[in-house]
Amino acid sequence: MNLRQELTDIAKKAQEASRSMLNVSSAKKNKILKEMALALNSKRNLILKANKKDIAKARASGLSRAFIDRLTLTDKRIKEMSDSLVEITKLKDPVGEVIKAWRIPNGLWIHKVRVPIGVIAIIYESRPNVTSDCIGLCFKSGNSVILRGGSEALNSNLAIYQTLKDAIKKHRLSDSVVNIITTADRRAIDVLLKLNNYIDLVIPRGGEGLINRVVKSSRIPVIKHYKGICHVYVDEWADLNMAERVCFNAKVQRPGVCNAMESMLVHKDVAARFLPGMIKKFQKVGVEIRGCSTTQKIAKGVKKANDKDYHTEYLDLILSVKVVEDLAEAIRHINYYGTHHSDAIVTENYESALQFLREVDSACVYVNASTRFTDGYQFGMGAEIGISTDKLHARGPMALEELTTYKYMVFGSGQIRE
Amino acid sequence: MNLRQELTDIAKKAQEASRSMLNVSSAKKNKILKEMALALNSKRNLILKANKKDIAKARASGLSRAFIDRLTLTDKRIKEMSDSLVEITKLKDPVGEVIKAWRIPNGLWIHKVRVPIGVIAIIYESRPNVTSDCIGLCFKSGNSVILRGGSEALNSNLAIYQTLKDAIKKHRLSDSVVNIITTADRRAIDVLLKLNNYIDLVIPRGGEGLINRVVKSSRIPVIKHYKGICHVYVDEWADLNMAERVCFNAKVQRPGVCNAMESMLVHKDVAARFLPGMIKKFQKVGVEIRGCSTTQKIAKGVKKANDKDYHTEYLDLILSVKVVEDLAEAIRHINYYGTHHSDAIVTENYESALQFLREVDSACVYVNASTRFTDGYQFGMGAEIGISTDKLHARGPMALEELTTYKYMVFGSGQIRE
Repeated sequence: MNLRQELTDIAKKAQEASRSMLNVSSAKKNKILKEMALALNSKRNLILKANKKDIAKARASGLSRAFIDRLTLTDKRIKEMSDSLVEITKLKDPVGEVIKAWRIPNGLWIHKVRVPIGVIAIIYESRPNVTSDCIGLCFKSGNSVILRGGSEALNSNLAIYQTLKDAIKKHRLSDSVVNIITTADRRAIDVLLKLNNYIDLVIPRGGEGLINRVVKSSRIPVIKHYKGICHVYVDEWADLNMAERVCFNAKVQRPGVCNAMESMLVHKDVAARFLPGMIKKFQKVGVEIRGCSTTQKIAKGVKKANDKDYHTEYLDLILSVKVVEDLAEAIRHINYYGTHHSDAIVTENYESALQFLREVDSACVYVNASTRFTDGYQFGMGAEIGISTDKLHARGPMALEELTTYKYMVFGSGQIRE
Repeated sequence: MNLRQELTDIAKKAQEASRSMLNVSSAKKNKILKEMALALNSKRNLILKANKKDIAKARASGLSRAFIDRLTLTDKRIKEMSDSLVEITKLKDPVGEVIKAWRIPNGLWIHKVRVPIGVIAIIYESRPNVTSDCIGLCFKSGNSVILRGGSEALNSNLAIYQTLKDAIKKHRLSDSVVNIITTADRRAIDVLLKLNNYIDLVIPRGGEGLINRVVKSSRIPVIKHYKGICHVYVDEWADLNMAERVCFNAKVQRPGVCNAMESMLVHKDVAARFLPGMIKKFQKVGVEIRGCSTTQKIAKGVKKANDKDYHTEYLDLILSVKVVEDLAEAIRHINYYGTHHSDAIVTENYESALQFLREVDSACVYVNASTRFTDGYQFGMGAEIGISTDKLHARGPMALEELTTYKYMVFGSGQIRE
């Protein structure tokens, strides 16, 4: 069987399975999710063993520290994956919710009802916990899922996938509800992206190369989970102690993730007071600073930042810094260089805060808080499928509700149009 | 200036204009919309004159009756366009609505707030009222719009566009909020579809050729307003008098539009009682019937339907008919041949009704009513931008709310992530 036939067959079966899911109750879905959670814990050693293989390979290939951090599973991270599945059972099933309903003058009774999207393909890179989060959230929301993870995490992903799929099988549901594409053939993604008769949505999570490739070749609607070039802007009216805490947290607490700060903007009137101490604090924990010429004048040990730096998601202990004229320049800079992910202002000024919230065109805009909070779990949505940097259908953390669409169910009694 | 530069320039300015719209109040937008409505009436003769040119050309090119029906403006239709704009002023401005807001345990106060999408490109065929509806709805929802209408309606569209744009200009808003692409160069669409840095959404309204072309070449998210192959299924438990009224209305009341019935399915147990009278009634008003072999046996003057007929949106007085084994076959047929637009069942049976509503994968599913009600105005949403046959972001009639997205505004007091 060739690649195209093989993938079409998977997608077709996934579509059929998604239709059968319309008749599965929330109670049954929750029961299976709890068994998935237990299975993750009981198969922990097996999963860790598979993960060790992937880590060894990644080390041998000289992949970066941040990359290996994202790839690595531990007892704690597996417990978190398992806890996330239990968390999902506690969340309200969005399917069947009547979003609104009304009667029109001729008596037709219109219901706008939440329904599953259908078949969702998720293309991601090296984080194995994504595998279990995606399966859990898609299953609870009644969707079939087709996963294509990074080859660097293949062993980990397969071990997690098999563990969860076994729990579904036990309950005699079609196991075509969950699917993973494991072929080494790199054309698999392009073939998959042409199957718009069977797949309703594709979510690519990853860097520029992956995203551009998907956007160019997909005939299926795409919700991009693109990189996060997140900014913190320290306003002229900032509480500088708070600014130091927020910026330090946004950069250092976990630099390898998409909601970490990559670029710090500072109002010119507070730069001389703020930057020397802040930069020293960063340098002390090993953060490399790349700044504009004003930054270089004010602080020590600062490399020159070029235009490319402001376009770069380092995912590492590197930070670009720019001193700006005013709030307007900060907003323009963020809208131009940012990726519409998460951006924060630190300020005590009411007007500055509101203007920043209104005019920065990002999924999550913060006043006086670290960008690190952009996360479905932190937001109280349960586990997340990822962070959408797109504006359509879903923006920011995507959880259960964002994995549904709606249809209009109209109850009539013989109405015709005059 | 070449085509690419010209279009990029338009899109860039449209993006700037959309950002300036963030600071325009609802009151001001409504005032301008009312002036647009007045202007449509006062410039009526000018618009009708332009429309006459288009109609004469269309007649000379031998275009179909349905096509010319969609193209034709009358005093009544211009008044409807004007009324639609007034209707829009009465609708609640969706921008700024707090969809929900909550506090998380660390005190962060998260607001999910409705905001404009940004820049929307709309590619449509020959219906000139689309021009004013699109401008009105995009303007009220704070979006910039770039229109590309069918060349057959060029004179009509330009006359309407200029009339509405003049009303915006008078209020010193950037007139880059509304744009129309008039070049005869047919590559314009493909060039436009690559401008994903400036355009946030493209909505193609039209037939298979246009939609496929847009989906293949767009790097901008697409919401398809695809053709409507709408079905009415007459169940074994139908009230056959009601079924006759509903089917007749769905086919005949205005056959040239996307929510008209193109295909009628009839349960085998009622076919002999229902079809002869129904088909005679259709034939009396000139509807050509193309049926399956069972239909041919039961009724007179029925042509043989082939597989292609069930895939065809006639937009004319032609109807395909099929006798089916049961409800399950009807649902399978609709999900396979339909375009996920609008489909109805006529039945007195409770279980059949619910199963149809649940399992038919269409934007609007009806029990005991004509499919002709799928329409933003009929649904009580005010004028509509069109009917989405997609599942993501917006499904079914798209009006103001569907032209917005949201962002998370997060109010903190120095929170950092532990």
